[in-house]
Amino acid sequence: MTRGKLLVGQAGGATSVINASLTGVMAEARAQRIEVVWGMRRGAEGALAGEFVDLSGVSSEEIQTLRHTPGAALRSSRHKISDEEAGRLLEFCRANDVRYFLYIGGNDSADTVHRLARMARERGYDLAAIAIPKTIDNDLPVTDHCPGYGSVARYVAIATMDSAKDTESMPTMYPVKIIEVMGRNAGWVVAAASLGKRTGEDAPHLVYVPERPLSREQFLRDIENVHRELGHVVAVVGETVRDEQGHPFADTALSGEMDAFGHPLLRGTASAMCRLVQGELGLRSRYDKPGSLQRMSSLCTSPIDLAEADEVGKEAVRRAVQGESDRMITLIRDEDEPYRSHTDVAPLSEVANRQRLLPDGFLAEDGTAITEAFRQYALPLLGPHALPRYARLRAPSVVPHETP
Amino acid sequence: MTRGKLLVGQAGGATSVINASLTGVMAEARAQRIEVVWGMRRGAEGALAGEFVDLSGVSSEEIQTLRHTPGAALRSSRHKISDEEAGRLLEFCRANDVRYFLYIGGNDSADTVHRLARMARERGYDLAAIAIPKTIDNDLPVTDHCPGYGSVARYVAIATMDSAKDTESMPTMYPVKIIEVMGRNAGWVVAAASLGKRTGEDAPHLVYVPERPLSREQFLRDIENVHRELGHVVAVVGETVRDEQGHPFADTALSGEMDAFGHPLLRGTASAMCRLVQGELGLRSRYDKPGSLQRMSSLCTSPIDLAEADEVGKEAVRRAVQGESDRMITLIRDEDEPYRSHTDVAPLSEVANRQRLLPDGFLAEDGTAITEAFRQYALPLLGPHALPRYARLRAPSVVPHETP
Repeated sequence: MTRGKLLVGQAGGATSVINASLTGVMAEARAQRIEVVWGMRRGAEGALAGEFVDLSGVSSEEIQTLRHTPGAALRSSRHKISDEEAGRLLEFCRANDVRYFLYIGGNDSADTVHRLARMARERGYDLAAIAIPKTIDNDLPVTDHCPGYGSVARYVAIATMDSAKDTESMPTMYPVKIIEVMGRNAGWVVAAASLGKRTGEDAPHLVYVPERPLSREQFLRDIENVHRELGHVVAVVGETVRDEQGHPFADTALSGEMDAFGHPLLRGTASAMCRLVQGELGLRSRYDKPGSLQRMSSLCTSPIDLAEADEVGKEAVRRAVQGESDRMITLIRDEDEPYRSHTDVAPLSEVANRQRLLPDGFLAEDGTAITEAFRQYALPLLGPHALPRYARLRAPSVVPHETP
Repeated sequence: MTRGKLLVGQAGGATSVINASLTGVMAEARAQRIEVVWGMRRGAEGALAGEFVDLSGVSSEEIQTLRHTPGAALRSSRHKISDEEAGRLLEFCRANDVRYFLYIGGNDSADTVHRLARMARERGYDLAAIAIPKTIDNDLPVTDHCPGYGSVARYVAIATMDSAKDTESMPTMYPVKIIEVMGRNAGWVVAAASLGKRTGEDAPHLVYVPERPLSREQFLRDIENVHRELGHVVAVVGETVRDEQGHPFADTALSGEMDAFGHPLLRGTASAMCRLVQGELGLRSRYDKPGSLQRMSSLCTSPIDLAEADEVGKEAVRRAVQGESDRMITLIRDEDEPYRSHTDVAPLSEVANRQRLLPDGFLAEDGTAITEAFRQYALPLLGPHALPRYARLRAPSVVPHETP
């Protein structure tokens, strides 16, 4: 027997599967006979401005199409709520008989849910507040991995394979390619670029994760070495990579912009690296910066990621109905081949405001390559037959009668 | 009865289907019992340096995998040959009994083939020189369209749909998105961004093609108007867009680089536009620049494009064996639904050094949108079920008892 309303929201950067978590919540709420489901527009930020929609009447067909639509259908926000705002949200829940509060997001969202759950307990209001994990950064602790990651990993692996074929097509003209990818403080996305690599000749030849400081000298030496050996270089770099003094490669002076939390917005890491390579080594360099495309591609969506995003949404409803609160749904890996996982929960106190960076064992000692352990961890998350198979022409050179 | 060797090369920017033209040539050469097929490394540039490979022994399995591999497997070049070099190439063909010269590329490559064919005729050497069309820019005259275009069009249409879902997810935080795509002097690729647009709410809300000069004032007015109406803006811009004085939006001073033909390399059109919007309108702006990814994506390859790239390669061999020369293979469209086309030829004198820009009838009067005529032209080239179907959440607003 269920009672009261369910309130659901989406927060942080959108992904290609974040709507699957939302539709998972919507479908399971119906299965659990929760009669009224409200969506917050723009997460907690919109809720605090009184922006709600009634999801109870959305048809099953619409839910099916939404499930496969990238982006946050409810709209998202990066707003970090204050204690005062958490109090207002809680009193809003009480006034409207909201008994289930489900929030799809990353570290900051987990913190929002944690504070709301704690406050509800303190003020004696019976509210089941559950965080549903979502982040391409894959940096939430406790869970084996985060919904959103498998798909961005697949995108970045394929994009690296594709882009490298461009560099291989004109190595004398454009010998250096830098691909800039996301990941905030963690190198999970950068590392995924190597999942399509089968031989030393394959790209990426270098990866640079934000966990490891990178001196300009070392970077140039790396590029020079690979170029000497192969005649061309494809490097994949996290947008937030910094040098030993903590200075970003990106030219912040260029933009002068701040992100929503007041941190300087890092723009143009790859572009700055290209200028460095051209200026210091005289090698023509180009970069690709897929930007938001990397986390929004429905063509690259991992079927496993999609199914798990749906499942964590459903499990959140079940746990909430059972009266659990102050929890985040987690994913436990059962098997790699064939891949199987199940859901569990973790106390939000173990999750909120903690970041899981790339462990040392997943990176080679010099930091510019991944290990087999990382490959075994990440590859199953991309789904079966996740990567294309490309060939390289193997044909003997000929010595003609006369050369031109 | 065939005699002599076949020489094949790839030139210009690589695409996701340029290898299908190469493997088409290889397969048809076998069917026509041409015993020796040589590949030029790096197009005419490598040939002039004596770099050839023997393609005669490549297995059918390898040919099949290569067919689906993006990039120029023989390697490519942007080298424009001189008359002296054409003469050397011709004498090389004579000395080595090369009777078929097939070159896969765009306008510059057509010019190379044209000069070689003319010179062969003048010097009395029996050489069948045929150009195989390839360019994502879709700017070759006579042919209905160019192999490579259908796939990049599909990529750009999907990327615009994907990226727009990101902007729709956080319209208050990042209301403006600029997507920068390729196309040299022609707007075919920019226009393709609109192929997934079904309603006025859908992206792109503005397109800017290189054929139309764009004043900074008009650009800012456009952005402001769409933002006022929808609350967010997604604009797609060609990387070479210029203002009324012919000045590029891109900041050439930033790079100071030149391309292979000595033209200043335009970098950062979208990035410059973002700075303009932020500075003048105070609207937070982000950009995506898929770079070489847009023309190298095997996931976005149009099956029609792939089949036609294969077919123009095969037809070039057949025409060459029949003794035709100084021709480019063209595509003639028979029907739109179901799509059917056949090949024909055009004299290279009608092709070389001529560019087909986007006709006025394919652009709305103010230049910021496509017409139905363009949609009917382009959509069939993407293949069946080429675009995903995305939903937008339609749910009624609720007025809660009490707002937070």
